Amino acid sequence: MISQQEFIARQQRLLAQCAPGSVCIIPAARLVTRSRDTEYTFRQDSDFWYLTGFDEPDTWLLLSNHERHQHSFSAMICQPKDKSQEIWQGRRLGAEAAIARFDLDEAYDLSELPEVLMEWLYGHDHVYFALGQHGHADTLFLEAMAALRDAPKESCAPPSIQDIRPLLHEMRLFKSACEVAVMKAAGKISAAAHTRAMKAARPGMYEYQLEAELHHEFAMAGARTPAYSTIVGSGENACVLHYTQNNKALEDGDLVLIDAGAEYMGYAADITRTFPVSGQFSEPQKAIYALVLKAQQKALDFIAPGVTLKEATLLVVEIITEGLIELGLLRGTLSENLENESWRAFFMHGLGHFIGLDVHDVGNYRIDGEDRPLQPGMVITVEPGIYIAPDADVDDAYRGIGVRIEDDVAITATGIDVLTADVPKSIEEIEALKR
Amino acid sequence: MISQQEFIARQQRLLAQCAPGSVCIIPAARLVTRSRDTEYTFRQDSDFWYLTGFDEPDTWLLLSNHERHQHSFSAMICQPKDKSQEIWQGRRLGAEAAIARFDLDEAYDLSELPEVLMEWLYGHDHVYFALGQHGHADTLFLEAMAALRDAPKESCAPPSIQDIRPLLHEMRLFKSACEVAVMKAAGKISAAAHTRAMKAARPGMYEYQLEAELHHEFAMAGARTPAYSTIVGSGENACVLHYTQNNKALEDGDLVLIDAGAEYMGYAADITRTFPVSGQFSEPQKAIYALVLKAQQKALDFIAPGVTLKEATLLVVEIITEGLIELGLLRGTLSENLENESWRAFFMHGLGHFIGLDVHDVGNYRIDGEDRPLQPGMVITVEPGIYIAPDADVDDAYRGIGVRIEDDVAITATGIDVLTADVPKSIEEIEALKR
Amino acid sequence: MISQQEFIARQQRLLAQCAPGSVCIIPAARLVTRSRDTEYTFRQDSDFWYLTGFDEPDTWLLLSNHERHQHSFSAMICQPKDKSQEIWQGRRLGAEAAIARFDLDEAYDLSELPEVLMEWLYGHDHVYFALGQHGHADTLFLEAMAALRDAPKESCAPPSIQDIRPLLHEMRLFKSACEVAVMKAAGKISAAAHTRAMKAARPGMYEYQLEAELHHEFAMAGARTPAYSTIVGSGENACVLHYTQNNKALEDGDLVLIDAGAEYMGYAADITRTFPVSGQFSEPQKAIYALVLKAQQKALDFIAPGVTLKEATLLVVEIITEGLIELGLLRGTLSENLENESWRAFFMHGLGHFIGLDVHDVGNYRIDGEDRPLQPGMVITVEPGIYIAPDADVDDAYRGIGVRIEDDVAITATGIDVLTADVPKSIEEIEALKR
Amino acid sequence: MISQQEFIARQQRLLAQCAPGSVCIIPAARLVTRSRDTEYTFRQDSDFWYLTGFDEPDTWLLLSNHERHQHSFSAMICQPKDKSQEIWQGRRLGAEAAIARFDLDEAYDLSELPEVLMEWLYGHDHVYFALGQHGHADTLFLEAMAALRDAPKESCAPPSIQDIRPLLHEMRLFKSACEVAVMKAAGKISAAAHTRAMKAARPGMYEYQLEAELHHEFAMAGARTPAYSTIVGSGENACVLHYTQNNKALEDGDLVLIDAGAEYMGYAADITRTFPVSGQFSEPQKAIYALVLKAQQKALDFIAPGVTLKEATLLVVEIITEGLIELGLLRGTLSENLENESWRAFFMHGLGHFIGLDVHDVGNYRIDGEDRPLQPGMVITVEPGIYIAPDADVDDAYRGIGVRIEDDVAITATGIDVLTADVPKSIEEIEALKR
Ligand SMILES: [Mn+2]
Ligand SMILES: [Mn+2]
Ligand SMILES: [Mn+2]
Ligand SMILES: [Mn+2]
Repeated sequence: MISQQEFIARQQRLLAQCAPGSVCIIPAARLVTRSRDTEYTFRQDSDFWYLTGFDEPDTWLLLSNHERHQHSFSAMICQPKDKSQEIWQGRRLGAEAAIARFDLDEAYDLSELPEVLMEWLYGHDHVYFALGQHGHADTLFLEAMAALRDAPKESCAPPSIQDIRPLLHEMRLFKSACEVAVMKAAGKISAAAHTRAMKAARPGMYEYQLEAELHHEFAMAGARTPAYSTIVGSGENACVLHYTQNNKALEDGDLVLIDAGAEYMGYAADITRTFPVSGQFSEPQKAIYALVLKAQQKALDFIAPGVTLKEATLLVVEIITEGLIELGLLRGTLSENLENESWRAFFMHGLGHFIGLDVHDVGNYRIDGEDRPLQPGMVITVEPGIYIAPDADVDDAYRGIGVRIEDDVAITATGIDVLTADVPKSIEEIEALKR
Repeated sequence: MISQQEFIARQQRLLAQCAPGSVCIIPAARLVTRSRDTEYTFRQDSDFWYLTGFDEPDTWLLLSNHERHQHSFSAMICQPKDKSQEIWQGRRLGAEAAIARFDLDEAYDLSELPEVLMEWLYGHDHVYFALGQHGHADTLFLEAMAALRDAPKESCAPPSIQDIRPLLHEMRLFKSACEVAVMKAAGKISAAAHTRAMKAARPGMYEYQLEAELHHEFAMAGARTPAYSTIVGSGENACVLHYTQNNKALEDGDLVLIDAGAEYMGYAADITRTFPVSGQFSEPQKAIYALVLKAQQKALDFIAPGVTLKEATLLVVEIITEGLIELGLLRGTLSENLENESWRAFFMHGLGHFIGLDVHDVGNYRIDGEDRPLQPGMVITVEPGIYIAPDADVDDAYRGIGVRIEDDVAITATGIDVLTADVPKSIEEIEALKR
Repeated sequence: MISQQEFIARQQRLLAQCAPGSVCIIPAARLVTRSRDTEYTFRQDSDFWYLTGFDEPDTWLLLSNHERHQHSFSAMICQPKDKSQEIWQGRRLGAEAAIARFDLDEAYDLSELPEVLMEWLYGHDHVYFALGQHGHADTLFLEAMAALRDAPKESCAPPSIQDIRPLLHEMRLFKSACEVAVMKAAGKISAAAHTRAMKAARPGMYEYQLEAELHHEFAMAGARTPAYSTIVGSGENACVLHYTQNNKALEDGDLVLIDAGAEYMGYAADITRTFPVSGQFSEPQKAIYALVLKAQQKALDFIAPGVTLKEATLLVVEIITEGLIELGLLRGTLSENLENESWRAFFMHGLGHFIGLDVHDVGNYRIDGEDRPLQPGMVITVEPGIYIAPDADVDDAYRGIGVRIEDDVAITATGIDVLTADVPKSIEEIEALKR
Repeated sequence: MISQQEFIARQQRLLAQCAPGSVCIIPAARLVTRSRDTEYTFRQDSDFWYLTGFDEPDTWLLLSNHERHQHSFSAMICQPKDKSQEIWQGRRLGAEAAIARFDLDEAYDLSELPEVLMEWLYGHDHVYFALGQHGHADTLFLEAMAALRDAPKESCAPPSIQDIRPLLHEMRLFKSACEVAVMKAAGKISAAAHTRAMKAARPGMYEYQLEAELHHEFAMAGARTPAYSTIVGSGENACVLHYTQNNKALEDGDLVLIDAGAEYMGYAADITRTFPVSGQFSEPQKAIYALVLKAQQKALDFIAPGVTLKEATLLVVEIITEGLIELGLLRGTLSENLENESWRAFFMHGLGHFIGLDVHDVGNYRIDGEDRPLQPGMVITVEPGIYIAPDADVDDAYRGIGVRIEDDVAITATGIDVLTADVPKSIEEIEALKR
């Protein structure tokens, strides 16, 4: 678990990167209506969570390094403490307790927001804010700016609006030891869930029932929601990349591709495994699976600090292309196929992505147009795949096969740490598990 | 399951209630961002679902009874069929297949929406629409109206915008036999889940783990999402009506209150049970529980066609007040307490609500200010409760006890049909189950 | 001047046309920023003015025929009386005085608008409102509707939003005797201004100086603003239909086309005259002018109750086409040219339009797709024109000539009443005036 | 007239003040609806006009100092050239001609705006823009920013939005010699108009007719619109500061206060004179007038580079207070009255304001909270006044008198240059003029 000290240290690190005379305004997320008077389960804004670890909606964090605040000031707007409201809508921390918990200089009730926002902005040279992130926050922010700008005699609005995201997202890109530990926990929970689903699968069961097994395993471990919509694609459904209907019955002979990860203490895991419903790969399935596994293994061997995701992708593409030629799924020489990118018909997505508080996490993949070398603290997925469309112009035996193998790896000083290793991956392990 | 014929019959029933020369415009819901590029699990708009049973976002249904359409016309705007988009985002029905499936006169691609909307509205006398329901749909609708109004020579916009909700919601209030059957299925799934959670509970377990047991039971039965945020409140948490944090460990001696229901084929169940973690009610717990149970039982005995919810509430209030006086939690005579409504400190919510596609379902409780008698086809919850605040001015032994017992009942021609009967409710049954 | 009785009678006539249980909501216009803290001269919303004759912004009129109001109720929201505000921003009528002046049942301060709007809407069956007319009013109106709709137990929002414009605009289409009298006054003022400009024009003078003469004449007579942007097009500028730059020096030999009308007591005049700067038409100018004048005269002779604008247009088109053939500007037979609409290159706008509180006034030109016969009380413009582009493929002598002659006529029981007759139109009169 | 070179020099001066890697986006104003299909006379955005002198709506200026543009780049989005549209709506410059006229690197049609805006913003470190100035421009700007931010792999949106106003408005505060010359021309036109109105005034004439005289004089000189709403307040109306109804008949014995100024080539004049309708001041009128005149004269003598407006105000307040005490309108000693600010009941507005493209022109009056000394190039108004409310607790003879005397002065290297001197101000001159 992330300590309150770490959250405060993040705030200070952020503030230290801002120009002098700056104020940062970071609004929390809000509840979203699902239907009529019900709401979706609240999900905190990742940036707000990263800085506070606070899980209430309708809250705002402020940081200032203005000299009038002795260069270091933090405050919060909180949902009001209100006994009768809290009987109905659940308990809230409240402004007073927030000061203690978050070591704030000040805290206010939500009803004071418009005035407080003006006070916070007043006289700063820069405001760091994420315009375009939350519509309601934009409106309030821009109204406060306009009011200050129109002050008589002398505008009091910060003349400069800095996008807070580049700073925050570069920070989020590099995970602390604590963060990696939490992500490893998320990985473990998710791995256990995949293992359970793998064991449970049998013909006649529905895809959504495998989803249920995974989600139950997540939730029992304290991960009450998945990090993203769970994909359970059996048979040809494995070839639809974001298949989330999960309403088909598993059939004997089918492969089933499961892409699912827990959200644990805010952090995502992202695992994909593909396995035979009946417990035995057919020959064509085995051939494709082995090829994807080889590609992933080579990529994992290759990835290390200093390497770029693009270089790893080139390696994987070469292995997959070579394999597809050998299996007769591509014709021509390796170099011909690499040149005309024929492999894109079978491997149409990227090799991996940053992962953290978001499953497709923040952080620039390029800097000034150049691919960026991986560095310690980054966490990425490695997820090669081969998808053979049901109407692909290939040997009938391969049609409709879809395989992806995905693990999450933290880049360390010396190499990588696979966070999701606890789930079977080799053909032998999988077949053994299902026996 | 609701047949396609029933959906079409609903459309026709709706259209038959519209004035001549009317067009109905019913937009589907849209996907909602959860964080960054992930979205909440899609939930269809209840009205759209009621009329179509179609579970895709970004879809619009049109119905017209204009004579130029031979008084009966239906059409749809659909997400486009697009092979490469569907590999990435999942399969879609598409306009062509929609015509067959929904027996439409016409169907179009989403890209044609602005033009089609103008054509649909053109020259009608009335348009039935739910202004204020979906922001994006309002914008598109009002833009089309403005464009038609500004036509040269003669305005072609319908001069009358009728709120479609009163018609649709009165229809939705009366459930068909098929709907009651689906709701009974939802009730059965939810009852099994409650029974499982009741059995599973033991000291040291976390509230969210009971939630996990319930949700797994739901999902295995095909109810992939709960109808509303599950409440698992142990000890004093039972007194927070919408407690959804569910992060406390169950303690020996605590009661735990679970309010949870599956959403099955779009329909909600809504069950509450309260039981002792350890399997045995203490004397004060038993006293309160017995009183709530008696109140619920009397209400169930009383409720029948022709009765109003208000009358049932008066009955329950009298029983609860009498009981609280007997237990020494209220002082004074029954009539004094009824008059000053002292019972509101312990029973602060309503006795029940309509339930259907929404857990707090649509439908007017009053007509022209008069309480409305229950009628066959209505489905309601019956959920008395007693909540004794931890700081209540009562005998210490009762403080922090919260009990609610809730069942869903369909009003029939002759009485009621309890849809959620399959979960223990009497003290004996509960204690037996936990032995 | 329109009497207060007439305004109240209009309100009653409007209300009588509404369905029982209706409320009408009519917002005034608002001040519009011109630059920084200056505003454009306030122009009242025409519909609001039509019903009240009240020239303050931020005001709302309400009419109700609900039985709870004894079927006849009027109220207003007014700008607040506030001594210090009025020193700064000008005097206001205020709620109290409004009751007397407009014979209201009730009046309120603007600050009470949101609550009053909800009270006004509450429990009505229909609300007549002009959605899309004023953005700020739409927002307030829709918020009040939403709040009423979400009332617990039973929606209190009117289920039907009727467009108030068709009713109001049909009323506005038929001018009362008083309105015709005011429009005649507007016509007289405008005619005097045209005569003055005609006299004043001389080579070297700027187009905007003719505009200045016109506007001064308007303003001295109490018409402080023109009804629309004044067009003073000399030479080729006459061929740009909405030429409003007016920044060229008049040249000897040029025609100058002036299209200008006063706004007097809210009502527009709309006169166009074309005349030679130097006082003498050249031969080609004379030929074109005579043709347009003949067309206008024939149209004026033809127009009468029962005739349609379309029929008048056909007559004018025939005359103009015939003339253009005679002058060699069109080739081929009359019927050929009518068929291929070659005349559209020279006469590209309509023959006339309704005029009243707006220069292009409200009212449908067609009913159910059929051209509508003119009827007593309608007021229209009659404005044929011929415009020969500077690069037209015709005899050089005609290039760059633009002529329009426009008068405003009220349809009477027996024929027409030309409201703008007091300005020279024949070649002889014009040349005489300039001598 | 401002030369095209000066406009371009301004653009370069602006760009030179921006951080390296900056792009400036300056949208023009848009046409604003007056009623139905008529629009208010177009007024260009002052900032856009300051940089271009271009009077078309729906136009955008871009400046970039990015190295990819060799540190100096200008471009424009223009209304499209379109022959048939221009026949109807007036001539436009078009992209091609704009390049030549404004010495641009590139120009585009309005239809390309969304794409061009993205290209313009792409890869810059800073964007200078006036958020909150024009709603439609904000929307387009923020959409383009969001699209760039969401680019895959690496955000391409400028991370910093700088308010362009502080830079531009500090530039606008210091008028060039050309600007002062244009403002002097505006002052001359306005002075002539005041003189004419002074002469014309006689009992029975309406206030709006004096307005008409002023506006005609403005317009004949090429100033087609006043810089702000003209105030003609006779009698007690002079005490309503922003009295613009101007609908009262002048009465013998009344003073009339006229506050009016031409807008000439975009620049405002702002003159107030107060004079007796009949040509002779009464004794009380003379006393008040003389006092205001003395205060203004002393202020004009005092104002010079290095002086602050606040210091001039203190001087004027002292003179006025002393005079009011002498006249018996204030009681007590001078220092008592200064301390309790009793004079505010009679002189409730500021002594002056910056003037330029806007009548209340841009520019900060304070810097870091300190009053700012006047400097050469600034242009200000000097406008003391005394207003005695009709119900003031003073000698009846003074009630209802309102006097203001206002001139525009440019601060020069050595003192001031009064731009509006050509209109009588002394009692003798005024009485002589009216004889
Ligand atoms: Mn992934
Ligand atoms: Mn319930
Ligand atoms: Mn006209
Ligand atoms: Mn001024």
